[in-house]
Amino acid sequence: MTRNELFENILRKRSFLCVGLDTDINKIPSFLHKTDDPVFEFNKGIIDATNEYAIAYKPNIAFYESMGAQGWIALKKTVDYLRNNYPGLFLIADAKRGDIGNTSKLYARAFFENMDFDAVTVAPYMGEDSVSPFLEYPGKWVILLALTSNRGADDFQHHPDDENSLYKLVLGKSQSWSDNENMMYVVGATRAEMLSDIRKIVPRHFLLIPGVGAQGGSLDDVVAHGMNSTCGLLVNSSRGIIFADKTMNYAEVAALKAGELQQQMENHLIARGML
Amino acid sequence: MTRNELFENILRKRSFLCVGLDTDINKIPSFLHKTDDPVFEFNKGIIDATNEYAIAYKPNIAFYESMGAQGWIALKKTVDYLRNNYPGLFLIADAKRGDIGNTSKLYARAFFENMDFDAVTVAPYMGEDSVSPFLEYPGKWVILLALTSNRGADDFQHHPDDENSLYKLVLGKSQSWSDNENMMYVVGATRAEMLSDIRKIVPRHFLLIPGVGAQGGSLDDVVAHGMNSTCGLLVNSSRGIIFADKTMNYAEVAALKAGELQQQMENHLIARGML
Repeated sequence: MTRNELFENILRKRSFLCVGLDTDINKIPSFLHKTDDPVFEFNKGIIDATNEYAIAYKPNIAFYESMGAQGWIALKKTVDYLRNNYPGLFLIADAKRGDIGNTSKLYARAFFENMDFDAVTVAPYMGEDSVSPFLEYPGKWVILLALTSNRGADDFQHHPDDENSLYKLVLGKSQSWSDNENMMYVVGATRAEMLSDIRKIVPRHFLLIPGVGAQGGSLDDVVAHGMNSTCGLLVNSSRGIIFADKTMNYAEVAALKAGELQQQMENHLIARGML
Repeated sequence: MTRNELFENILRKRSFLCVGLDTDINKIPSFLHKTDDPVFEFNKGIIDATNEYAIAYKPNIAFYESMGAQGWIALKKTVDYLRNNYPGLFLIADAKRGDIGNTSKLYARAFFENMDFDAVTVAPYMGEDSVSPFLEYPGKWVILLALTSNRGADDFQHHPDDENSLYKLVLGKSQSWSDNENMMYVVGATRAEMLSDIRKIVPRHFLLIPGVGAQGGSLDDVVAHGMNSTCGLLVNSSRGIIFADKTMNYAEVAALKAGELQQQMENHLIARGML
């Protein structure tokens, strides 16, 4: 998917919502455990109910990997279901991978060939040759970790000081590896005020914002500090949507929650003159 | 496995060799493609031929993940085969994972519960809460990336300068998360001269050294700069052993290559008075 197609999808759906499919087998409604593939059945229910409000879906791979081969089957079925039933969605493998060049190639093969994801989240610690194999696929994207939303972000991402912090170096240096047509950045929403600083370094790139909802970030703050003239934001919500209800009605309640976020997003897009 | 048990295994086998099971389906001998599970059959051959020379095995997860569910089945069969046939080996999942706390827990479940690995390699970018879930398993280890062996290591790991470099901060700060009984560090062998500096920060920890052999590191240099009084080294070789020969004789040639390294390692252990 090109950057322009992504923006067109945002305008068409009046939303920049990404739904995080962090499907923990231990948290899904119990009636689903009677089915052959509870994780896939859960995802199917969420996708059918929320797709009109979302432009992207982001399974976090850990939840599938924790189930071994069975989890990988559920993941692949989920990606295929999204592709076959709802064209035009942006599919993100939240994998946070990264290894030496010849090994990152294999991870790229896993997510871009074996499965039809549009993007993979990548950890920057090992530098350019750990990232570049993902950039060799036309129309596919790297979403590089810059500033994450967890407490541990303080340990290394701000080293050695605010002015010269590692996350700013990641944002700056990685722009020589690619451009805003196939690279985005993860920026945690719990630090929305830092988005203004980040926009000085990457004014035109899309940013993937996790942490709105259960992790405590505010959509209004994110928009105020992070939106650009082509939206430039994919805002993710996982638990706040998919586990808002744990009964037979889980999909219906997920739709309500996704719809509320979509409405807020639509208002922001109107206020900024994009709609 | 405790640190002491690991050292005892090193003395018993007169070796600190780790064999990297980076089993690329496209590089294994063609006759194996006639079997039901070529990757597992290849690994079985390598393991049977090399286990007397090795104290550890390290599958890089990317090679298995690139094959989807089938790869995860081959990986689990490989781990089970190692466990059931050759007790006392140290099994490393070279996964380079790391995510927010509640997600890293799921990765820990994948490698320590779903499969019986002793250790997982973890990327430090997201800080303490991305690492600590792996430390909650008694007898299991985190092997944290510090200084990697690839070209991209220069991009961020040395930021902002040699004295205050990120990799030194990783080594220093992570010591408050755990001790040398369940944490090790990855230190690339292509930078053996830096091992002396690293030993000043982590004198007693085990170090996992990739990059000897195909990636160009020298065993003599690694030992000269990195060995401590309880060995303190796991030296990995992957391609130099497993793909040394690509015919029917691949396992036999792998045994020869592993045996050569074991002999050099034995000489070093004798020279240092450990044997």
